[in-house]
Amino acid sequence: MKVVTLAGGTGAAKLLRGLLQVMPAADLTIIGNTGDDLELFGLSISPDLDTIGYTLSARVDETKGWGVAGDTWNCRATLESLGENTYFALGDKDIAVHLWRSERLRRGVPLSRVTEDLAARWGLGCRLLPMSDDPVRTWVKTPAGWLAFQEFFVRERCEPEVLDVQYESAACARPAPGVIDALRAADAILICPSNPISSVGPILAVPGIREALHERRTAVTAVSPIVGASPVSGPAGKMMRARGYPVTVGGVAEVYDGLLARLVIDHRDRSEEARLGERGVGAVVTDIMMTSRDREISLARTVLEASR
Amino acid sequence: MKVVTLAGGTGAAKLLRGLLQVMPAADLTIIGNTGDDLELFGLSISPDLDTIGYTLSARVDETKGWGVAGDTWNCRATLESLGENTYFALGDKDIAVHLWRSERLRRGVPLSRVTEDLAARWGLGCRLLPMSDDPVRTWVKTPAGWLAFQEFFVRERCEPEVLDVQYESAACARPAPGVIDALRAADAILICPSNPISSVGPILAVPGIREALHERRTAVTAVSPIVGASPVSGPAGKMMRARGYPVTVGGVAEVYDGLLARLVIDHRDRSEEARLGERGVGAVVTDIMMTSRDREISLARTVLEASR
Repeated sequence: MKVVTLAGGTGAAKLLRGLLQVMPAADLTIIGNTGDDLELFGLSISPDLDTIGYTLSARVDETKGWGVAGDTWNCRATLESLGENTYFALGDKDIAVHLWRSERLRRGVPLSRVTEDLAARWGLGCRLLPMSDDPVRTWVKTPAGWLAFQEFFVRERCEPEVLDVQYESAACARPAPGVIDALRAADAILICPSNPISSVGPILAVPGIREALHERRTAVTAVSPIVGASPVSGPAGKMMRARGYPVTVGGVAEVYDGLLARLVIDHRDRSEEARLGERGVGAVVTDIMMTSRDREISLARTVLEASR
Repeated sequence: MKVVTLAGGTGAAKLLRGLLQVMPAADLTIIGNTGDDLELFGLSISPDLDTIGYTLSARVDETKGWGVAGDTWNCRATLESLGENTYFALGDKDIAVHLWRSERLRRGVPLSRVTEDLAARWGLGCRLLPMSDDPVRTWVKTPAGWLAFQEFFVRERCEPEVLDVQYESAACARPAPGVIDALRAADAILICPSNPISSVGPILAVPGIREALHERRTAVTAVSPIVGASPVSGPAGKMMRARGYPVTVGGVAEVYDGLLARLVIDHRDRSEEARLGERGVGAVVTDIMMTSRDREISLARTVLEASR
């Protein structure tokens, strides 16, 4: 069974790690969000692709859910001693990946090729694709003005009120080579439990991807990032509200309107089952909190079973 | 007394550290070699400028004489795990300086402005200038072909036989802003005990600098990097031989033919005094091995006294 996933960072990476325990890696294609990519000190940083790569190659810092285990911060501290503001976490091991990627991008190698090569060097086994080789950047409108996604997310710790979210340059971005073909050939398409607005939203904003999902709607299953009317983590709630969606599993189905056959929801949200049905979305009720490796695996198994 | 120095890396840095103990920092201008600069992973690295900066700001790894004290190697190890050859030592703290410099150079800021700013952030007090804002690259011809300087110096550990040394693009390089003015206004010009071919050679190869020294010859004092017919460190001997110079203090005077009023030599080389005299070069005989901080200071004092 060929599985294609749309993925953000931490939450997605856990489900993907579970999937790799219950299916052949070679049958899995991951389409990663690059809307929250950034450039710092000439480094091209792709936080979501890196979180996925670090997690699936067992390099990730398990406590934080991102970054490299046992990383050190000497480069960052030195940049600070030179008077630089380094709000974004740049670990010394992490910087190596950014240097490696940036050098290739600067030579003109497209991000998809760089990412494929990196995935191979990490020994992932599965296919990791950026949503696009063209830069798309997520901006968050706050009362103090527009912030680049990482400024909002890391520097401001998601504290400002969110008034709007936009995906800069998405309208003229093209899906990365392989993305549309993978969606068309997939037996199952999974939308990971990532922020629907800032993680999956940029992927769907790349012209052609939303349409491809819509065409394959019967194959599409999403896992809700909302449990009991609040997000499992991060600013999904704020962002859904800013876009006018209720912060419920029904709101998730609304964001993905016309794209879903099924939504995997937690027992706590069982009461919304009927409302999902009205939208033509089947509810798959299970434990969706991935609080252990075992739960990642059992959620992955449930999701695959539901997608058959 | 305004002092201008031509400087390579480790040996120069020790004399400069001594000088700063016996004269006001504001009166010292350092013209550093950039012939052994290199680009790795998109980082613009200026090893000699960094060695000087690290040494004069008390950041240097005292044991090695280069790099940052207490540095770690996690970025480098990660690059190696990605399959990269990282023969050149890139410490995590050191990388911060390269990132900082590279970002500015990429924006079009000239190396002299970047270096001036970096020197200020390091709190050097003195003026640190690259010999040129234009890239000059030293190449070493070996029986196996031409090697970039750092390939010869670091990767091949100076082991290959040296057949020739060339300074790529030196002929069309211009002295960095301030270099010629500083030489003209100097009360004393010092050539540090650096490799005459690979450290001072590139500086003198920048059109205008050799001529400026020649005009100011009576103010110019060099400190010999050769003691007792062998170099204090590094491949100076091999390189002098390759260029047809004897590896003696007389050979040093010959490399600097027409540029020196005085050469500071070690007691062991006192027998060459007469031969230097024949070339019109006064010998200043002292202990030139800088084996302690006290000896750095006393050599600096001797050199300044001789230059008055």
